[in-house]
Amino acid sequence: MTENVLLQLAAVLEQRKKAHADTSYVANLYHKGLDTILKKVAEEAAETIIAAKNGDSQQIIYETADLWFHSLVLLAHQGLGPTDILTELQRRFGLSGLEEKAARGENNE
Amino acid sequence: MTENVLLQLAAVLEQRKKAHADTSYVANLYHKGLDTILKKVAEEAAETIIAAKNGDSQQIIYETADLWFHSLVLLAHQGLGPTDILTELQRRFGLSGLEEKAARGENNE
Amino acid sequence: MTENVLLQLAAVLEQRKKAHADTSYVANLYHKGLDTILKKVAEEAAETIIAAKNGDSQQIIYETADLWFHSLVLLAHQGLGPTDILTELQRRFGLSGLEEKAARGENNE
Amino acid sequence: MTENVLLQLAAVLEQRKKAHADTSYVANLYHKGLDTILKKVAEEAAETIIAAKNGDSQQIIYETADLWFHSLVLLAHQGLGPTDILTELQRRFGLSGLEEKAARGENNE
Repeated sequence: MTENVLLQLAAVLEQRKKAHADTSYVANLYHKGLDTILKKVAEEAAETIIAAKNGDSQQIIYETADLWFHSLVLLAHQGLGPTDILTELQRRFGLSGLEEKAARGENNE
Repeated sequence: MTENVLLQLAAVLEQRKKAHADTSYVANLYHKGLDTILKKVAEEAAETIIAAKNGDSQQIIYETADLWFHSLVLLAHQGLGPTDILTELQRRFGLSGLEEKAARGENNE
Repeated sequence: MTENVLLQLAAVLEQRKKAHADTSYVANLYHKGLDTILKKVAEEAAETIIAAKNGDSQQIIYETADLWFHSLVLLAHQGLGPTDILTELQRRFGLSGLEEKAARGENNE
Repeated sequence: MTENVLLQLAAVLEQRKKAHADTSYVANLYHKGLDTILKKVAEEAAETIIAAKNGDSQQIIYETADLWFHSLVLLAHQGLGPTDILTELQRRFGLSGLEEKAARGENNE
């Protein structure tokens, strides 16, 4: 199942903090700092919008994945992670454990 | 646990497609159409960037949640969903089922 | 001729700094502060992009005017103005006084 | 004086339309097409916002110049130009020829 991909990615992003700047794309982003990470978030948001206007599903998936990925880099850089966002969404939409179980049944892919 | 919150939210967003425009925020967004949804994605990306520059963790969590939420609305509007994005991220980062199991252990919150 | 519209607008924006928040749109923006002004810049950039993808010339003109207008509000809020930007563009593109005279002839509308 | 810099730049951008893609930055942007130009507009808007949050006047001037420049490239690509935007701003703010004369006096730099 795909559902804990965000947590796995967060674990990878955490490990990258110890790496040298030139060893990976993410290590390089950390090294360049917050403003560079934020420019990437903005770029990927714009590319998602352009993909949607192009009506190209594959491009939308690709750019939204880029947008979420760079959001995760931003969260990691700030000492946060996907659990913070998912907890906020859960709180906001009143999703309980019981509803979760039901949804797990509905989305059993 | 929180990890299938995105799938639950996607199920809620799917149900909202049958609702009248004035019955919920999301039904209203669908009714207004793609351009309005895209403007929201752009706004929330900008607010995430501003929150990060303010160095305010609570604001970053809140705005990133808004950004992911409106990404999910966009995906639903286009007949897509979070599984498409998570599968793309999984593919891209070579996260296997085995690695998933390991990560599940690491991120056991 | 239209060419000094930006300078006129800057003069109007300067005057609004002395106004109460509820007396004009711009006075209200100043009162709400930098983050609100920046969100407007981001919104208008997104709306310009969407207008361009819609291929609607009138909408492009309208949204680009909004984008430039909110840029001018930002500049005024920061103690800057359109002359700073035009001087930078002039410097960057090596536009001399002589070239300006020539261009003025070419663009004599 | 700097005030007709936008018209001069528009004339330069018009000439670049006849150039080969590899002869200049702008010719290359035209060649890559609308989506690439729009991504640049989004990037420069984000960089303007980040510059403003950094409170760095020189960076704000630089990024706003980039934003206006890429807006001009977009306008040229769409068969439009700065006069369309300035006329819209003039119409919107009720700036008459007489007021222009007065403003020219006030802003005599």
